[in-house]
Amino acid sequence: MKVGIVGIGHGKFGRRDDATVQELAFEPFKEALDDSGLSKEDIGATVIGSSPEYHKQRSLPGVVAEYLGMNPQMTYLTEAACASSSAALHNAVAYIKAGIYDIMAVVGAQKMTELTTPEILALMGRVGDVQWESVFGTTFPGYYAMYARRHMHDFGTTEEQMAKVAVKNHAHGLHNPNAMFQKEITLEKALGSRPVASPLKLYDCCGNADGAACVIVAEESKAKSISDTPIWLKGMGAASASMSVLRRKELNSIPSAVEASKQAYEQAKVEPKDLHLAEVHDCFTIAEIIAYEDIGLAKKGEGSKLIDEGQTYRDGKMPVNVDGGLKAKGHPVGATGASMTVEAVKQLRGEAGKRQVDGAELVLTHNVGGIGQYCFVNIYSR
Amino acid sequence: MKVGIVGIGHGKFGRRDDATVQELAFEPFKEALDDSGLSKEDIGATVIGSSPEYHKQRSLPGVVAEYLGMNPQMTYLTEAACASSSAALHNAVAYIKAGIYDIMAVVGAQKMTELTTPEILALMGRVGDVQWESVFGTTFPGYYAMYARRHMHDFGTTEEQMAKVAVKNHAHGLHNPNAMFQKEITLEKALGSRPVASPLKLYDCCGNADGAACVIVAEESKAKSISDTPIWLKGMGAASASMSVLRRKELNSIPSAVEASKQAYEQAKVEPKDLHLAEVHDCFTIAEIIAYEDIGLAKKGEGSKLIDEGQTYRDGKMPVNVDGGLKAKGHPVGATGASMTVEAVKQLRGEAGKRQVDGAELVLTHNVGGIGQYCFVNIYSR
Repeated sequence: MKVGIVGIGHGKFGRRDDATVQELAFEPFKEALDDSGLSKEDIGATVIGSSPEYHKQRSLPGVVAEYLGMNPQMTYLTEAACASSSAALHNAVAYIKAGIYDIMAVVGAQKMTELTTPEILALMGRVGDVQWESVFGTTFPGYYAMYARRHMHDFGTTEEQMAKVAVKNHAHGLHNPNAMFQKEITLEKALGSRPVASPLKLYDCCGNADGAACVIVAEESKAKSISDTPIWLKGMGAASASMSVLRRKELNSIPSAVEASKQAYEQAKVEPKDLHLAEVHDCFTIAEIIAYEDIGLAKKGEGSKLIDEGQTYRDGKMPVNVDGGLKAKGHPVGATGASMTVEAVKQLRGEAGKRQVDGAELVLTHNVGGIGQYCFVNIYSR
Repeated sequence: MKVGIVGIGHGKFGRRDDATVQELAFEPFKEALDDSGLSKEDIGATVIGSSPEYHKQRSLPGVVAEYLGMNPQMTYLTEAACASSSAALHNAVAYIKAGIYDIMAVVGAQKMTELTTPEILALMGRVGDVQWESVFGTTFPGYYAMYARRHMHDFGTTEEQMAKVAVKNHAHGLHNPNAMFQKEITLEKALGSRPVASPLKLYDCCGNADGAACVIVAEESKAKSISDTPIWLKGMGAASASMSVLRRKELNSIPSAVEASKQAYEQAKVEPKDLHLAEVHDCFTIAEIIAYEDIGLAKKGEGSKLIDEGQTYRDGKMPVNVDGGLKAKGHPVGATGASMTVEAVKQLRGEAGKRQVDGAELVLTHNVGGIGQYCFVNIYSR
């Protein structure tokens, strides 16, 4: 039995002092209901993807389900760091394939700006191994700086190539009204921005944001009756890798991403060259270059070529992150996976406006949790 | 297709300064593997049930999966407050019924004693609605004190009846080597203990504990080949209720528990009178009396009769919480649901030693999250 996406919603990402986390969740939920033509009574259960510690409010599904009017239906939260709502989507597909529910809503929601930047950095460091690594001051940019240094050392990747990823994603984000940063940047500006964790500079890093996105999924026959253009989950992969970098064999690749994409390609019976678009997890610019290699768009060590040659621009050979990616869109961690799925669906429906990739028939999303301890990869088609 | 439990493990609950959260998780995981005769290579994926905010370590599945040696298999966390590992078990059943994995491990793990009691109380208050209720100082005992007052007002339930629940569960806990408190208490001691949130006194409250429990589930044919005595999940119910008490119609019952148990009975095609044992969520003594009514062991308002008449003792007509319940066993919130399931399985296998309920063939577990915003009810049989 296939599972189809029949409704999508996406709120504005950025600093959202105007909304509590449940209010953030409501916006895309309502939009997704309207998009699908369903009413909330049709939804069997709701899964919330979020990274809890950023919120004053604990146990989000309680307040969110109440605010969405979804009691007494089942609800709970999934957490897989920055891949939390991809885990939620995988859960919903499992419940539907199991025949337990026919229609489910997945809501990725995150409010991060209740905290100060130092507080956020401290919390992010604690997503790394607290016993053996955080004690030495590893923060999130610090972890990805290690990836960058290693990739530079092993393959000659340059700071300029990384900056080019930022320039591309900002150019794409210009056309995404939900993006946190809707402005182009120059290579000079990116390269000249202040260091965060060398070699990563400010413009190598995505922005911490508030935001939410929602995806409504349904079993095959229901999906066909609800929507004229259901989008099918053709392949799904999920894998893990060690949390401690000290237990990683190499730092120029994310092993969970390699494994999850392998699973997704096998299930979908397609190859990287069949894709028309990929939305990948560019929490830092180096992460996008590594993603090119991990999901098979480029050979290992050759990811930087794709950006050098402009292949991953919207009008290039293999568009990547045409919605601006985490870089320009902002990264409300729990919402990012659902946000990627929303863009995949828009593209496959041909509803992406100025961002539309011509002839998009096969789209991949690649959502990494933490420093790669989780990865969820999905392949979607009409 | 049926889903069977083929392996169980349960660590010591209590103050566990000797172990990190991943070490706590390892103990029952190893025990469950040994119990099942499986090796970790047989496990398709691991779901961690936990309430994250109590830990210095964020994103537990990352460190736990690494420590259990479960990379590169999928892992993620489920959170539904005190019902987090019941949500994880429901997830695992869905994945197996969907045919995505054949065998999965559910690990409930929680370390709460890294924090001080005031810190824990503050965190617990934030499981209630932060916007409208926590600001008025509602803590967890405060919420349940409201339930107690309302039940006393509506039905004449007394403080003595509540204390009798504590006396019973401590008597049961005496025979559970994994319990935090293995000692009997008297009615006088319970009634004379210091007030926590009137009318609840110290002995009306369960103890904050560290702890972990593990359940390995498998699809029907695998379960039969792995185990001579697989225990079947015969009925499963899951529901939610408003988080804010201000939106509850009544406070003498937990609506999600009523709904979830109705679903479980219907699916299992049994009635409350068919049960031989129930493990219910006695985070406070009043919660056990309300549970009697919510799951249909007593009519509404008549729950206190069961404890007055001693019916819910191990040798009574309808044994409840023969492992000591949350009250004597301790309540490491994320581990409690899995712990209940472990006891159900032990009883159905006839392996519960001095706690064994004669002729136990049908067991129910009732795991409430928070103040009832979630409830998961399962019915198990041989």
